[in-house]
Amino acid sequence: MLARIPEEELASLLRGYGYEPLFFDTGDDHLDTHRRFTELLDRALDDRRAMIVFRSPKGWTGPREVDGLPVEGTWRAHQVPLAQVRTNAEHLRQLEEWMRSYRPEELFDADGALKETLAGLAPRGERRMSGNPKTNGGLVLRDLELPDFRRFAVPVDEPGTVTAEATRVLAQWLTQVVRSNPENFRIFGPDETASNRLDAVYEVTDKQWDARIEPVDEHLAPTGRVVEMLSEHQCQGWLEGYLLTGRHGLFNCYEAFIHIVDSMFNQHAKWLKVTRGIPWRRPLASLNYLLSSHVWRQDHNGFSHQDPGFIDHVVNKRAEIIRVYLPPDANCLLSVADHCLRSRHYVNVIVAGKQPALQFLPMDEAILHCTRGVGIWDWASNDASGEPDVVLACCGDVPTLETLAAAAILRERLPELKVRVVNVVDLMRLQPELEHPHGLPDHEFDSLFTSSRPVVFAYHGYPWLIHRLTYRRTNHANLHVRGYKEEGTTTTPFDMVMLNDLDRYHLVIDVIDRVPGLVDRAGHLRQEMEDARLRAHAYAREHGEDAPEVSEWRWPPEAVVAP
Amino acid sequence: MLARIPEEELASLLRGYGYEPLFFDTGDDHLDTHRRFTELLDRALDDRRAMIVFRSPKGWTGPREVDGLPVEGTWRAHQVPLAQVRTNAEHLRQLEEWMRSYRPEELFDADGALKETLAGLAPRGERRMSGNPKTNGGLVLRDLELPDFRRFAVPVDEPGTVTAEATRVLAQWLTQVVRSNPENFRIFGPDETASNRLDAVYEVTDKQWDARIEPVDEHLAPTGRVVEMLSEHQCQGWLEGYLLTGRHGLFNCYEAFIHIVDSMFNQHAKWLKVTRGIPWRRPLASLNYLLSSHVWRQDHNGFSHQDPGFIDHVVNKRAEIIRVYLPPDANCLLSVADHCLRSRHYVNVIVAGKQPALQFLPMDEAILHCTRGVGIWDWASNDASGEPDVVLACCGDVPTLETLAAAAILRERLPELKVRVVNVVDLMRLQPELEHPHGLPDHEFDSLFTSSRPVVFAYHGYPWLIHRLTYRRTNHANLHVRGYKEEGTTTTPFDMVMLNDLDRYHLVIDVIDRVPGLVDRAGHLRQEMEDARLRAHAYAREHGEDAPEVSEWRWPPEAVVAP
Repeated sequence: MLARIPEEELASLLRGYGYEPLFFDTGDDHLDTHRRFTELLDRALDDRRAMIVFRSPKGWTGPREVDGLPVEGTWRAHQVPLAQVRTNAEHLRQLEEWMRSYRPEELFDADGALKETLAGLAPRGERRMSGNPKTNGGLVLRDLELPDFRRFAVPVDEPGTVTAEATRVLAQWLTQVVRSNPENFRIFGPDETASNRLDAVYEVTDKQWDARIEPVDEHLAPTGRVVEMLSEHQCQGWLEGYLLTGRHGLFNCYEAFIHIVDSMFNQHAKWLKVTRGIPWRRPLASLNYLLSSHVWRQDHNGFSHQDPGFIDHVVNKRAEIIRVYLPPDANCLLSVADHCLRSRHYVNVIVAGKQPALQFLPMDEAILHCTRGVGIWDWASNDASGEPDVVLACCGDVPTLETLAAAAILRERLPELKVRVVNVVDLMRLQPELEHPHGLPDHEFDSLFTSSRPVVFAYHGYPWLIHRLTYRRTNHANLHVRGYKEEGTTTTPFDMVMLNDLDRYHLVIDVIDRVPGLVDRAGHLRQEMEDARLRAHAYAREHGEDAPEVSEWRWPPEAVVAP
Repeated sequence: MLARIPEEELASLLRGYGYEPLFFDTGDDHLDTHRRFTELLDRALDDRRAMIVFRSPKGWTGPREVDGLPVEGTWRAHQVPLAQVRTNAEHLRQLEEWMRSYRPEELFDADGALKETLAGLAPRGERRMSGNPKTNGGLVLRDLELPDFRRFAVPVDEPGTVTAEATRVLAQWLTQVVRSNPENFRIFGPDETASNRLDAVYEVTDKQWDARIEPVDEHLAPTGRVVEMLSEHQCQGWLEGYLLTGRHGLFNCYEAFIHIVDSMFNQHAKWLKVTRGIPWRRPLASLNYLLSSHVWRQDHNGFSHQDPGFIDHVVNKRAEIIRVYLPPDANCLLSVADHCLRSRHYVNVIVAGKQPALQFLPMDEAILHCTRGVGIWDWASNDASGEPDVVLACCGDVPTLETLAAAAILRERLPELKVRVVNVVDLMRLQPELEHPHGLPDHEFDSLFTSSRPVVFAYHGYPWLIHRLTYRRTNHANLHVRGYKEEGTTTTPFDMVMLNDLDRYHLVIDVIDRVPGLVDRAGHLRQEMEDARLRAHAYAREHGEDAPEVSEWRWPPEAVVAP
């Protein structure tokens, strides 16, 4: 752009890369140029190092000049060069001259059909570029051999008592997926596969690397099934090509930085939407995003790494191709990931944490919960005998933890209050059934969220997304959502949720403020909650970490008593 | 990445660009390296063509090996090289050795303070990098000299009767802005300034171009104030730097492709949010986006160029720094643009069409309307005597046109129906006042949109954004929004709005379906509207353009009669 590289410099550079450049310039006559080029091509095919540098003026063979201004080889050739053929006789004459320069009498017969001698040169059937099955990837797509994810389950005897790192658990299963599918599954990532705690896959494969490998390098090989480059654009482009040609893949990325490919995602989503309506296009494997290192756990990186808005971006696209999952723990993540790798022609977004976190569901229950996509957690609720006084809804691993901790406080301190805990894995269940294929019918939605009780909803991302998904629901006027409201910094995990009023103490306050009558009789507890927030705030600043009462909190079985 | 370029090849390449490379390698001793580098620097300063190629191992001067594994010069130096200094005596020893290698006794006095001889080397005051006023751009920011935009107004004697191209009108004013501010205002764009019909600015300036200028080139000069490159990333980055150093700018872009910089916008928005709270940081000029060639007029480019979602992305960021304007015509665009170029420390998003379109407001009314940000259009309404039966709300140039055409049909065909037309310029007026500084108080909102009447809202972008902004409003349950629902293709302008049910005929149907009692008595009109859609659909396919009854429609003064 700023300077053209002289031919000898370019040649020297290309030789440095191991190529032997062959410079080619087009000429005035395009048929003669074609003959010369064919000869060059024959030479080039004999030399594996040959690289043809093809130089052609923009608008080559078009009109040299129009209305006295140069066109061929200039920026003017970017537009329609002869724009007034209907009204300008000279333009029409130039158009005819241009078209005749292709010598149509040599190409077409008297009826205007391409001559058989030329038509016969074109490949036929699957040898045509457009007929190659790899251009219609669904034709050559094979199901993945998926190992039984149940074998990788975290044992959960009592909910909320053991910890695990969700993505590290997933990696055990992914490792077997890689092993069982050595030719049609790849993992892509912007140099974050280990940071996202998926590095177990390096037990069975490597990062693909075609250049020199130094003694100090680890897990690099030309045969690697993990494709890493610190360019989200490259990862997305490679994965799209891999899917379009009939293979399967997973893109793992820091949540905040997946916005880098917003625009590329748009185009792939548009492609999926349009091709769903083209009968001969066969469905592809879904494009699977695993977003980890998410907004709530950027303890060291801070505000620049905190952004849960990719979900908002994605759900603007057509409902029939978009799926969004926020598994609350490792077993749910396994179930969701298995589902996504089996699915076709969707974009699946999975948001899952990598930090040690409490586990809630044994595998059998996780499968039921993820298949439903949303459900009441009986063991955390005390409203089994009738209608709840309040619904605590949650979606995402950190909001689920805070909601359970809030439920525990409410059940211990206000035991007469009937609390229902509802967890959402499949975000699209919230939408009306007319808006999304996963949308719950209104009566099912109401049976979970009630038609008249306060709902305090703790959500992983921007809170208004929950309103946008539920504004037509019966009980929407009673829905109060907490989530990320763009308050972030480098701080402790609990300070981060407090900054956004998503913490357990604030959720308890939200309940007190919204359940009719409670504000009159729970004044003491409300003040205790405010004080607990102030103490947690001060502790984090004094110690640089969260107070043990928060960081070591476990679901208290003693609170799980009959009301 | 794939191959390291040998030194002689790199040297040859750099010489091709006019540079003389000076290769420099760090050594074992960093103080000695510093001396050698200073000498090299002296030589380089004598030669304007000199370019130093500085080669240093990653983690240079850190521990060579830790736990028997190489660190310096390897990927391991990307992490904390000695992670267990608290518990591992050998790590602690290595840390001490490393720190002592800097010879602290030569650098600090007995009290641990930096020696005066060294401290004195550092520049003082504004010569410090962090103290340079250009790093706190607000300190050196000067107001733009803005010509009176009223002089550039389109004469509008009767609303909806004359046409103009909004961005082309704006360009007349921008031309004077460029002329009056030759040193601190620039226009940035991904090679779309002319396509967005701002090319009038080339009467007074050029595109900045520092390389060779060919005889065929136009409007290129090293002194140009327009910065173009077909890379939205580069445009965004340049503009951010220009603003951060105390200047003003405007980024013009095709609406769909501004998503390319979603992630960069995020970081700038976070920076604005944080620096608002830092007392010594002075406010910058706002980052102004002018999005044209928008979703509704991609007649030739089609689905890939249709995406109004940048607004959704932007409004997730903190309310105090985000402003979104959708001026309905050229005079409103002038008023809005003047306001944005005067504003500080915001991100302003302006969406405006470039195609010939009906003009609605004379300049005086445009200024009032844009200053209010939202308003009833009396001349289009017939409810002056009392409460309307229906509110037709609109936001964006194309939705405004369709809404007025629907209002004309309703007023002609159902003259007893009281119709109120409300136009929204400043999208943030819709939010509750607690959520956004521009948010209307509830009683003002209700006085525009009523507290109980059906509202049919025609919006430029994804319809659910309007719900997300208004879900707490009194009358939200009666709000019915039409907008872009991801149905697009290459087609005529009217076919495009029909694909998304945003057309005048469908808006009339929406009114008939929602105003109580109307569905019983307006059956004929409803069917006529369905037939009109079918006819317009067929006409577009037969003629490749819209029927004259649509494309030549004007606001009919004869319908503007007392009800």
